[in-house]
Amino acid sequence: MHVNSEFYVLLAVLVAAFSYVASSTCSDSRPNIVLILADDMGWGDLSVYGHPSQEWGRIDQMAAEGMRFTNFYSASSMCSPSRASILTGRVPPRTGVWNANYSSISLFGPMDSTGLPAEELTIAEVLREAGYRTGMVGKWHLGTNQYNSSDGVHLPHHHGFDYVGTSLPFSMTWHCDEHQIHIPKPPPFCFLYRGAELVQQPIDMHHMTESIVEDAVSFIEDNVDRKFFLYLSLTHTHIDLTVTPRFHKSSARGRYGDNVNEMQWVVGTVLDTLQSRHLQENTLVFFVSDNGPDVNICEEGGSPGILRGGKGKTWDGGIRVPAVAYWPCRIQAGHTSKAILSTTDLLPTFAELARKQLPTDITIDGKSMSSVLFDGSATSHEILYFYCADVLMAVRYGNYKIHFRSQSVSPPEYYDDDSTCVNGVPQDFPFLCYDCEGDCVTSHDPPLYFDIENDPGERWPLGENKIPEEVLLRVASLVFEHKKGMVARSAEIGSEPLDPSLQPCCNPPACTCNYPGKI
Amino acid sequence: MHVNSEFYVLLAVLVAAFSYVASSTCSDSRPNIVLILADDMGWGDLSVYGHPSQEWGRIDQMAAEGMRFTNFYSASSMCSPSRASILTGRVPPRTGVWNANYSSISLFGPMDSTGLPAEELTIAEVLREAGYRTGMVGKWHLGTNQYNSSDGVHLPHHHGFDYVGTSLPFSMTWHCDEHQIHIPKPPPFCFLYRGAELVQQPIDMHHMTESIVEDAVSFIEDNVDRKFFLYLSLTHTHIDLTVTPRFHKSSARGRYGDNVNEMQWVVGTVLDTLQSRHLQENTLVFFVSDNGPDVNICEEGGSPGILRGGKGKTWDGGIRVPAVAYWPCRIQAGHTSKAILSTTDLLPTFAELARKQLPTDITIDGKSMSSVLFDGSATSHEILYFYCADVLMAVRYGNYKIHFRSQSVSPPEYYDDDSTCVNGVPQDFPFLCYDCEGDCVTSHDPPLYFDIENDPGERWPLGENKIPEEVLLRVASLVFEHKKGMVARSAEIGSEPLDPSLQPCCNPPACTCNYPGKI
Repeated sequence: MHVNSEFYVLLAVLVAAFSYVASSTCSDSRPNIVLILADDMGWGDLSVYGHPSQEWGRIDQMAAEGMRFTNFYSASSMCSPSRASILTGRVPPRTGVWNANYSSISLFGPMDSTGLPAEELTIAEVLREAGYRTGMVGKWHLGTNQYNSSDGVHLPHHHGFDYVGTSLPFSMTWHCDEHQIHIPKPPPFCFLYRGAELVQQPIDMHHMTESIVEDAVSFIEDNVDRKFFLYLSLTHTHIDLTVTPRFHKSSARGRYGDNVNEMQWVVGTVLDTLQSRHLQENTLVFFVSDNGPDVNICEEGGSPGILRGGKGKTWDGGIRVPAVAYWPCRIQAGHTSKAILSTTDLLPTFAELARKQLPTDITIDGKSMSSVLFDGSATSHEILYFYCADVLMAVRYGNYKIHFRSQSVSPPEYYDDDSTCVNGVPQDFPFLCYDCEGDCVTSHDPPLYFDIENDPGERWPLGENKIPEEVLLRVASLVFEHKKGMVARSAEIGSEPLDPSLQPCCNPPACTCNYPGKI
Repeated sequence: MHVNSEFYVLLAVLVAAFSYVASSTCSDSRPNIVLILADDMGWGDLSVYGHPSQEWGRIDQMAAEGMRFTNFYSASSMCSPSRASILTGRVPPRTGVWNANYSSISLFGPMDSTGLPAEELTIAEVLREAGYRTGMVGKWHLGTNQYNSSDGVHLPHHHGFDYVGTSLPFSMTWHCDEHQIHIPKPPPFCFLYRGAELVQQPIDMHHMTESIVEDAVSFIEDNVDRKFFLYLSLTHTHIDLTVTPRFHKSSARGRYGDNVNEMQWVVGTVLDTLQSRHLQENTLVFFVSDNGPDVNICEEGGSPGILRGGKGKTWDGGIRVPAVAYWPCRIQAGHTSKAILSTTDLLPTFAELARKQLPTDITIDGKSMSSVLFDGSATSHEILYFYCADVLMAVRYGNYKIHFRSQSVSPPEYYDDDSTCVNGVPQDFPFLCYDCEGDCVTSHDPPLYFDIENDPGERWPLGENKIPEEVLLRVASLVFEHKKGMVARSAEIGSEPLDPSLQPCCNPPACTCNYPGKI
């Protein structure tokens, strides 16, 4: 078919006009913000991050149409401290969300009387102060009760969230599975809240995600006419990996892949809602995982890609996480950013977008990444600090990863040990060296240096004589200043004995209930 | 800005019209074909395949705008047999390109009198017969001389190539480096040809790639008015990793990353040439690696991602390769295909596109993948067979990878052994178990089964009792029929003693030359 050149000229003019119209719909007003958190998903678990088997989905597509990060770090390799750092922009010792015993797991359990300290300023509080409507749906894991089994002192509505939908004050665990792969009967700590109320115990795993999605969508739809912040904290891809029936066997990769596919659907549903409500032009959607994958649990754990180690370690497999920013109006499509960033940057970034000054009397470790997001800058943190409890384990400085202490890593090859994994399930719950000190932790003096860009698997340590002297001096100076300026809160985890009377129980003594009208 | 709805209606009409025009420029005529081969590049080496450090480049962009494959297999884990299979569509035993000793490296050296048998039908011969102009630039590695040091009996112009530009009849090796990282002085087997003529010995590594690119571009420009097939066989990312000066230190990843960046530039230059000559609408560009990365050579080898093993092994790390198809007119942008395909499929695919019937008296193992490329079909091979010499080592059948024999794999962690890699360079040339039988090879009876989609790292073998009986029976039956139908040529490699008089030497006895006018 022959088309004359006038046609193209006309078309070009109109396309230019359309571009102008399109860009002009990207107003300068403050955006809505949707923060979507994955749980224990590894750096290498998504197709867009190179997993060979995982199906392509909406998060991958979000990355293709947005910005994908390759050097994005979580401030912690474990759930509770990581989430505290996300919400406060501060490294774990400052937040108090760390374990007093240095030797156990930094997680708030349902028998703990503690939680994220009320004094800690959260993203939700900052944005609410800026006039945003704030909502939270999904996994909380920053404390439940303080004095009795239902006071909910530590729940999200006490930390700046106007709306709290279907939520898990604690966490998803493999004990909660209903197909009895792990244990015959769910224990009482599998419970679901809606707002401040316990509505289901144990959790109906096959419909939990639908409830979470419904509430996320409702929150958006209820707030189309005002600015909002939604913290959608998914249970994916933490065990036990149960999915709504439509995603059962949806993945060639098996149960873990089914779970990723369900998560992709959740994200897609949120994106579709934003689009159908014409909110896409003015909403930043940020997707990130809270920490690395649990590599000790056979097929039930995710993949760190070629990174070393996983959850609970300060090797990159435990702390470097997949992260995607999506805002078609403002963020360049298909860009892969190598900027060195941290989950602590979310709070200052969101505050800047909401044009809200942060108080100057609080130390915020993060900094706004707006120049990276909107100007394609590669501006990185000069240094990032990685803790286990209040112990500085390692830093990332430019191309260097420097370990002062490191945890042992279980070997990646289970091949010679068939008994470790049976039907893809580990034979006991392998908390393998989540410690900050002790037998499985090695102190390095001099520190252990890696060129992490050249050697992302942290396989070949460099002798100290290979590191330029100015690097050694600068790191020593930064670490010295950092330690000097560190005012740690006392540890909220492990400092008090567990108190069974705090454990939520909807219908004592049975502790079983299901209130469909309330879910 | 307010825009009335008529504007959008008009725009929609025009966009629709434009789409029609655009698609109509994708004529039904037979396309040009450019096949770009990487050398020893691993599944996990590109940013688009999930490498954490590697810079994004034109191949990644090609994938984003084309089709990326996740289950694309090479017919062999070593250079010469792999290339023979690519060019003939046949598995190695049929081509004769395998080692008679089962215990050495299946590569044609410059003292071998043998090469790809003249009787083997190549892509170039098929396409030349179909009226295409056929050109080859880069690494050949399918034989050089037969009777003396300059007869060139096995060179590409005897296998269907009308034009042969700057080329390496043998291979790039680490002995050819000029920065003396490995050895002080290049040996005589580092030589460059142009056409049938030896033009440089040793190779001027810093300018070799520029010569290859110039010839590839010239070939395209010389053939804008006719159909052409270009086989651009790159030296990237094989050691020794020397690059043209502009790519020196271009990558945060180091020398390997520099080499990938240079390769991206080569591919980009070819794509730009196609575009500037208005050939893009009617050219299929296919990029693929010949086999997996050499994981034994420290920082000088590539990454298989999370796959197990590398070059020389029939673990997936040795045979599953990155592959991208690009033809914006016909291939859907941004599609990731999980179809199980093979390098042997290239010949039948290209023949179909050129509308050339293949002879029926030759067994072609590949089949056309046109339905995958153009219809988004996931049509896969029911089974793929992987050989070492003429020994059937393993098969891929649906989600299963089944090993009859497997080679030992060196451990991925060198951490405790600093002496293995010094400055990123291995301390001896570690051909670690490239064998088909012997001490480092394990026979499996019953075979070793993996659910390769669930467990792409081949970590957790499944007991035979976990495999559905119909799978066991079907695989047994297919393998039986395959073996029955296998007519292997006698081995071309290792069957004759090496003959030093065959080694090319441009200027005896010095064997050094550099004829700039001819390069």
